[in-house]
Amino acid sequence: MDILTICEANNVPLTPITFLKRASECYPNRTSIIYRQTRFTWPQTYDRCCRLAAALLSLNITRNDIVSILAPNVPAMYEMHFGIPMTGAVLNPINTRLDAKTIAIILRHAQPKILFVDHEYAPLTQEVLHLLPFDDYSTPKPLIIFINDIDSTTKHSPGELDYEGLIRTGDPTPPLFTSTFCVRNEHDPISLNYTSGTTADPKGVVVSHRGAYLSALSTIMDWEMGISPVYLWTLPMFHANGWCHTWSVAARGGTNVCLRHVTAPVIYKNISSHCVTHMSCVPTVLRFLLEGEQNENDRSHRSRPVHILTGGSSPPAALLKKVEQLGFKIMHGYGLTETSGPVLFCEWQDEWNRLPEHRQMQLKARQGIRNITLAYVDVKNTTTQESVPRDGKAIGEIVVKGNSVMKGYLKNPEATSEAFKHGWFNTGDIGVIHPDGHLEIKDRSKDIIISGGENISSIEVEKVLYENQKVLEAAVVAMPHPLWGETPCAFIVLKVVETRQGPREEEFVTSERDLIAYCRDNMPHFMCPRKVVFLQELPKNSNGKILKSKLRDIAKALVVDEDGVDSKKVERRGVDHVNSRL
Amino acid sequence: MDILTICEANNVPLTPITFLKRASECYPNRTSIIYRQTRFTWPQTYDRCCRLAAALLSLNITRNDIVSILAPNVPAMYEMHFGIPMTGAVLNPINTRLDAKTIAIILRHAQPKILFVDHEYAPLTQEVLHLLPFDDYSTPKPLIIFINDIDSTTKHSPGELDYEGLIRTGDPTPPLFTSTFCVRNEHDPISLNYTSGTTADPKGVVVSHRGAYLSALSTIMDWEMGISPVYLWTLPMFHANGWCHTWSVAARGGTNVCLRHVTAPVIYKNISSHCVTHMSCVPTVLRFLLEGEQNENDRSHRSRPVHILTGGSSPPAALLKKVEQLGFKIMHGYGLTETSGPVLFCEWQDEWNRLPEHRQMQLKARQGIRNITLAYVDVKNTTTQESVPRDGKAIGEIVVKGNSVMKGYLKNPEATSEAFKHGWFNTGDIGVIHPDGHLEIKDRSKDIIISGGENISSIEVEKVLYENQKVLEAAVVAMPHPLWGETPCAFIVLKVVETRQGPREEEFVTSERDLIAYCRDNMPHFMCPRKVVFLQELPKNSNGKILKSKLRDIAKALVVDEDGVDSKKVERRGVDHVNSRL
Repeated sequence: MDILTICEANNVPLTPITFLKRASECYPNRTSIIYRQTRFTWPQTYDRCCRLAAALLSLNITRNDIVSILAPNVPAMYEMHFGIPMTGAVLNPINTRLDAKTIAIILRHAQPKILFVDHEYAPLTQEVLHLLPFDDYSTPKPLIIFINDIDSTTKHSPGELDYEGLIRTGDPTPPLFTSTFCVRNEHDPISLNYTSGTTADPKGVVVSHRGAYLSALSTIMDWEMGISPVYLWTLPMFHANGWCHTWSVAARGGTNVCLRHVTAPVIYKNISSHCVTHMSCVPTVLRFLLEGEQNENDRSHRSRPVHILTGGSSPPAALLKKVEQLGFKIMHGYGLTETSGPVLFCEWQDEWNRLPEHRQMQLKARQGIRNITLAYVDVKNTTTQESVPRDGKAIGEIVVKGNSVMKGYLKNPEATSEAFKHGWFNTGDIGVIHPDGHLEIKDRSKDIIISGGENISSIEVEKVLYENQKVLEAAVVAMPHPLWGETPCAFIVLKVVETRQGPREEEFVTSERDLIAYCRDNMPHFMCPRKVVFLQELPKNSNGKILKSKLRDIAKALVVDEDGVDSKKVERRGVDHVNSRL
Repeated sequence: MDILTICEANNVPLTPITFLKRASECYPNRTSIIYRQTRFTWPQTYDRCCRLAAALLSLNITRNDIVSILAPNVPAMYEMHFGIPMTGAVLNPINTRLDAKTIAIILRHAQPKILFVDHEYAPLTQEVLHLLPFDDYSTPKPLIIFINDIDSTTKHSPGELDYEGLIRTGDPTPPLFTSTFCVRNEHDPISLNYTSGTTADPKGVVVSHRGAYLSALSTIMDWEMGISPVYLWTLPMFHANGWCHTWSVAARGGTNVCLRHVTAPVIYKNISSHCVTHMSCVPTVLRFLLEGEQNENDRSHRSRPVHILTGGSSPPAALLKKVEQLGFKIMHGYGLTETSGPVLFCEWQDEWNRLPEHRQMQLKARQGIRNITLAYVDVKNTTTQESVPRDGKAIGEIVVKGNSVMKGYLKNPEATSEAFKHGWFNTGDIGVIHPDGHLEIKDRSKDIIISGGENISSIEVEKVLYENQKVLEAAVVAMPHPLWGETPCAFIVLKVVETRQGPREEEFVTSERDLIAYCRDNMPHFMCPRKVVFLQELPKNSNGKILKSKLRDIAKALVVDEDGVDSKKVERRGVDHVNSRL
């Protein structure tokens, strides 16, 4: 047959910015953004984003330029997810929890033309700028534009051009704006998202318009996000563009409830004030909800369930159960910055309704099946590169292939080709495929403990520990062992009950010996931790992920100190050591 | 920034055939197809489609070859929506209601290498083959392969290779099959769908893999088709690939309930036997449901609502209301063969819940807002090509732009460039945009009646007629008028009540004079029909669409015969005339 050519009418670049114009035309009366006393409708948000884009173009921002942002989940942060890519430039939202030194490393690497800074991070930005040698030709100084609070008359730097001033100067109807604005190739980058970098320098993940578009749609389908959701921004937008939900909410004509700070009272208050239907968060925030609920006793959100998508690390089944009992409906997803948000969703199966509740939560804690737009996922034996049998037992590395996978790491060809070797994106996560098709992660490849030739999944050991009612948090790592090579070492934070008289700990006292005995009763002996260390808190990175590399350092130090070491002493040293690096 | 290149891991062609492999891996235990006593699971369907593809490759089917099909909604028809495009070839499902002459025109134009024929259409195929000069070099004879009923041992043509034989010979694991099989370019054609062609020869609409993929996803989102639907095939799959729902159901891991013939008792029986959740149909089938319900009194499907997506023509509000009262939940969509199924969906707005029921149904009968993946829709003044104001009053042609728009008409560059002029796909439908962003079609551009310089929407007049309780069907067309140029002429089918004693018509008797008086009471006088013709049935094409061109011929003949003509005589003549052409 003759191959008909593609044309303007039947070939439009896939980009999530088309969702914004659609929302302004299809949902003209709906609220797009709520932030304290400020409300916008979708036509207003569209107008503001067009103004922003026009103003950026007049500042000579052009295709593939980087525009960095240091801001919490305020309206400006949301608008920039559209206004910056509309110009063909690339959004670079920076983790605000990073220290000045790491931010300086990112800026030196990304070389943005503009850096937008929320007024809250002005002092941090001063620190960062002192660390950067801007006289150096290789690091041109970005234009700094401050974001003052939209509902406040106080300006951080009066006289200077701020974000609202920029919006005012922009002409919203330049003739070059078509439906896809300045985006001509859907494979062009839309965002540059730095990984949290637990060990080495952060890597700059480049996401394409096409990838972001498909990831945003997948969430709508796989999470079953219905029409006009009310979405509470408990997940930082700097975290892989809020798992691309920034764009999903626009596609659905929903309402974004923006939050400057996330605490349990703020979450509960906003849920009831705005009839929130959806929110996303890491498991740590689930713990906030649990603790907040005890203190607040605010259950008004229960009139209809709030749908929570959680991910970032495996949520323990016991935690899921408790949060669901508060009237939340949790879905568990799995993804990485490199996959533009979740690529696996633990889709509920009707057959599970007949199982005991605890078993249901165990199944819900699995990573699940690939999202609709992810072309392929597999678990491959890391030696042979062959697919493992789908028996729920054979472990291998989870590998994926699909359009939401990053274009690569910016200016890092070695890391990019390492990530893409064998024609797949190699996640570094070790897991199994169950006979029902659901994947379950057993560990990060570097967190697997190899003891006497046996692979021990640290997550499996942690799961058992989380079922102990005295345990608040648990992390298990490899400790060197002269006979077995490695052996599990558990780090434990015990529960504390808050009473009117202050913290009360005695109910939750336990000993290393008791916990090891508990483990021996509940798992194969070769998997049992041979050492238990009690900490006040676990070392975490800026996204709340537990830093197992730090714990491995402590475990190694314990061996050097020989047996019979004083845990109390180690605990203090461990925590101090950790704090100096966070 | 350096532009990272795309690679195998992050760039996979968008094609709906990826949904099949995903379904087989993610939903291994779920039923894919139900047909009478036959059941398949998704891994079985995947296996059968791979076998089909392998067998086709061994018959030298290759990229861009056409494979035609003449079959009802049986399992083979569903499987071929995957197995044929897996080879890189193009599916051509032919409307089984066409006559031999039209099918011969299609085959001469499409030049398929293979023609699959369901045994029911063997006699029709014999007729078709006699009409084709296969000795002619320009029309090579296709290989005919019969499809015998999968649950029957009776073979239509024993000894010859039939569909099941082909499946048996195919090796399901040829090494060339990757996740996207033989599809290397997502812009390649997946299907060739002929328009129903009410006036001229049918045109061959070419749909791309990318377009079909995005259309299939849009339906999931815009219709809110949840996980694991049970989909009843009341819509012919030859009708724009069942509006791409063939592929949506696979993406959702749903169950396809296949039907050879669609009647009200069959629909009600299947709904209750298989707990159907979704079905799609033209408004004519809604009428079946209404009549079937009265006869059958089967309301067992009411335990949960069945979601119906209807489209193809505007459903009258009164009809929607009655069908919803039976426990169906109707969504109205709008699309054309050229847009690969629905591109507008009448999304429910919460504010509508507060309106009276009749008003709700009027709003539901509007075409609505563009689907999530359609980049752009507009209503343009046909003279100036400017967008009309969004006031619900100004009319213009509906134009769309997006990836699900066809690649063009096969071997018809003139029609293709006419369809795509001004950089849009011009639908030929005339409508308005309401202030709430919803579109409403007022007419096909050729159906608009221009009376004394005023545009009269035939649909508006029909809406009023449908609200008259004696009217079953109404169609209004232009009748030439010496003074006004054109004036509306109404064709009416009156209701008949079936009783045990046979049809009873007397309750629904009315006269031309009464109906005209009714119209004058309910619409501006310039819009009122000046002539009313009663028919036993309206002329329809093979898809159930009313053939207004035939009615215009009758209306024109009425004028030639001058006033005072005997309607009874015209009615008979009209129907005879129509039947000779259908």
